[in-house]
Amino acid sequence: MPQLTHLDDTGAARMVDVGDKAETAREAVASAAVAMRPETLALLLAGGHKKGDVFAVARVAGIQAAKKCSDLIPLCHPLMLNAVEVGFECDESRGVVEVVASCRVSGKTGVEMEALTAAAVAALTIYDMCKAVDRGMEIQAVRLLEKRGGKSGAWQREGGD
Amino acid sequence: MPQLTHLDDTGAARMVDVGDKAETAREAVASAAVAMRPETLALLLAGGHKKGDVFAVARVAGIQAAKKCSDLIPLCHPLMLNAVEVGFECDESRGVVEVVASCRVSGKTGVEMEALTAAAVAALTIYDMCKAVDRGMEIQAVRLLEKRGGKSGAWQREGGD
Amino acid sequence: MPQLTHLDDTGAARMVDVGDKAETAREAVASAAVAMRPETLALLLAGGHKKGDVFAVARVAGIQAAKKCSDLIPLCHPLMLNAVEVGFECDESRGVVEVVASCRVSGKTGVEMEALTAAAVAALTIYDMCKAVDRGMEIQAVRLLEKRGGKSGAWQREGGD
Amino acid sequence: MPQLTHLDDTGAARMVDVGDKAETAREAVASAAVAMRPETLALLLAGGHKKGDVFAVARVAGIQAAKKCSDLIPLCHPLMLNAVEVGFECDESRGVVEVVASCRVSGKTGVEMEALTAAAVAALTIYDMCKAVDRGMEIQAVRLLEKRGGKSGAWQREGGD
Amino acid sequence: MPQLTHLDDTGAARMVDVGDKAETAREAVASAAVAMRPETLALLLAGGHKKGDVFAVARVAGIQAAKKCSDLIPLCHPLMLNAVEVGFECDESRGVVEVVASCRVSGKTGVEMEALTAAAVAALTIYDMCKAVDRGMEIQAVRLLEKRGGKSGAWQREGGD
Amino acid sequence: MPQLTHLDDTGAARMVDVGDKAETAREAVASAAVAMRPETLALLLAGGHKKGDVFAVARVAGIQAAKKCSDLIPLCHPLMLNAVEVGFECDESRGVVEVVASCRVSGKTGVEMEALTAAAVAALTIYDMCKAVDRGMEIQAVRLLEKRGGKSGAWQREGGD
Repeated sequence: MPQLTHLDDTGAARMVDVGDKAETAREAVASAAVAMRPETLALLLAGGHKKGDVFAVARVAGIQAAKKCSDLIPLCHPLMLNAVEVGFECDESRGVVEVVASCRVSGKTGVEMEALTAAAVAALTIYDMCKAVDRGMEIQAVRLLEKRGGKSGAWQREGGD
Repeated sequence: MPQLTHLDDTGAARMVDVGDKAETAREAVASAAVAMRPETLALLLAGGHKKGDVFAVARVAGIQAAKKCSDLIPLCHPLMLNAVEVGFECDESRGVVEVVASCRVSGKTGVEMEALTAAAVAALTIYDMCKAVDRGMEIQAVRLLEKRGGKSGAWQREGGD
Repeated sequence: MPQLTHLDDTGAARMVDVGDKAETAREAVASAAVAMRPETLALLLAGGHKKGDVFAVARVAGIQAAKKCSDLIPLCHPLMLNAVEVGFECDESRGVVEVVASCRVSGKTGVEMEALTAAAVAALTIYDMCKAVDRGMEIQAVRLLEKRGGKSGAWQREGGD
Repeated sequence: MPQLTHLDDTGAARMVDVGDKAETAREAVASAAVAMRPETLALLLAGGHKKGDVFAVARVAGIQAAKKCSDLIPLCHPLMLNAVEVGFECDESRGVVEVVASCRVSGKTGVEMEALTAAAVAALTIYDMCKAVDRGMEIQAVRLLEKRGGKSGAWQREGGD
Repeated sequence: MPQLTHLDDTGAARMVDVGDKAETAREAVASAAVAMRPETLALLLAGGHKKGDVFAVARVAGIQAAKKCSDLIPLCHPLMLNAVEVGFECDESRGVVEVVASCRVSGKTGVEMEALTAAAVAALTIYDMCKAVDRGMEIQAVRLLEKRGGKSGAWQREGGD
Repeated sequence: MPQLTHLDDTGAARMVDVGDKAETAREAVASAAVAMRPETLALLLAGGHKKGDVFAVARVAGIQAAKKCSDLIPLCHPLMLNAVEVGFECDESRGVVEVVASCRVSGKTGVEMEALTAAAVAALTIYDMCKAVDRGMEIQAVRLLEKRGGKSGAWQREGGD
């Protein structure tokens, strides 16, 4: 039967020991979608300059959040990220901004939480900048798309949406 | 035409000036849902002890994240939260943990981002603790449920899902 | 029967709501003692220059820790300290450095935890700087000496040691 | 004779008590200059997209640093900034990027350090992004331009450079 | 004659160079005791649910503090912890909660400060949650129990209390 | 033609991938100068005790800032510093305090930004402690003096001032 490794035999939380794990190249890609009214997205995309700054701010927020992951998620291990990238794709007709974040590390634990945190915080940052005009926005589908490296090897989300 | 207040006339991001706003009692409630396989949720709920710690860890993570909001979301104002609460509700048949976070402040800006950040980080923490057994989990519907206080007054999400 | 206010009726932790509390002038004084071998303390006190820097580093650590209190202690409220002071007194014959920290705020919650955290972290910093020569040091009696302000009013530790 | 208020009578550092100060509207404007080779600045300005992101990243870094000021500068008081703005002006012939940061607060202490920290960190961020092509860059003239509010009233830098 | 390695020849503090040290498996175990009135501890232990959350919150606080150690203790090196565990033992008749924290790392410096910081902050968190009913509590005997690894090898506290 | 590596082909910022870089011993030395009125510096230097604490506080601030570098400068990689030193030299006739900071690491990226950040924050801390008596102070010449290690090898600033 599978076990929740973050709990010891008595049910107490712990930062699991990764001391015996090998240091390997690991990567994770995660995404999140910000669903808003199409007119909100149109406003966001109006004007080349403005577009630059909105997504640039969200990108920085996502990158910084990846580095703060072990401070945010209590049982995450601190690690030294080799790379973080955060990108955006807009579907204007549906009013959706898709955030994709990827993290890479040479380490003893995976970077799924770093990628998910980066995607979630970048999405929250977009929400913050648009909330004055569209309070009903929703962040959807914060999820892992793929991971590579480590003992459990590669994993890829099936299908799609 | 509505404007994105976080951008100045040239499109540059800024932390908007709230100096002229009145200090009022404000509250916001936000939620997020962690969708997992029903058997993952069953595992999470097996054993009274374990249940306690898993949700307790996620609750602390959410409360702490509310306090870190202005460090995570670049254009958010620092503020002195009066109260933060994070609760969980489990739908075992659907395999869903619903996170509800509420924040209160006497201040010049609202606490929507604090509540949303608390809900999102608590959800990410649950993901972290279960990911070894269910990598395909998804965080859904991070969204504001209601807000009170401030010039824009009360707001409540319509309908439901 | 008294209650632990940081827990709600179901036993879940929360940051209690201080929204209805009055903003008053509050102060707290706390202390901690670092017990070491007398020869370690002699080494620490040897040379005017060195003494300056060791205690200066510990003092800064204590002041900074007071400001980080709500980030360290999960259910503490963020607050805007008006003043922090950290002092040291050495009992060379017993090999004890006594740390005294005081914090003041105009706020809705007391600053006991800020003062205790400042004292504890200043003491840990002294431990850190001496540990290479005396690993058996011990931090003793981290405790509140007095507090003023707030609904519960003034409190002073009885007796002494 | 003037005194360094951050030191007590024994020369020990302290966070000075601002409890008796009035809460007034305060503002500070500070600047910093990044001097680089003109061809480095040309590279920085080449392409509309790129320009957007470089300065947007530095702007976010400056805004975030203003909020972290009391964590960086040991004797600074925590405060709740009402507004932060960071702007850039480029002198292409001299190869200089001027950073101007302004902060506002309703509080008991001034925001000079917040504005100076924002300008310095935004300048360091530009250095970081250009260092691979121009290691000899220099950050010059980190200084206060003006301040308003508080007991000491308004102050403005004389002359110019 | 022994030396305080955190000070250079002029008495100035420094983060000592560990660049030439070997990266070895290191572990440290530290403890702290929270002494309270027996009736306070009885209150803390009343009800299975409540017990879960109080100690769970303190455990998370301790684990997070271990990761923040280099930010709290000025001359500590940042390091990537492999594991952190925090446990509690209650002596109901004496009114004492004993906190034991252990940290492990593969690194160039030991993790004594991380373990001590985790124990101290977990103890402070228990103080925080009980202070409304028992202001006179005291944190005692924050100390290293044992360490392993590194050039100085294994060390174990003699005797006991 | 040289490129700004922190931007991808579309001009978006990223934390560049250092996964393929070798882990080598790296060092960087940076400086900053705080220019003040000679009488301000005289005040700063008056009294042996006082001098100790002012520079000790600034030194701690610089050391701590080096460790926070990846949190301050958005595209910097987190890294585990092996050593940080911050020193001061005073030119009383010119009224200048020169700050020199050096950082060392065994890592995949250089430590220029860490050294520059340490120098800048130590300088800002001196400004903070003297600003009540000399608001016109200026931080000048924040710059890299030399670096060693990594693929680009050694670099030394030419000439001097």
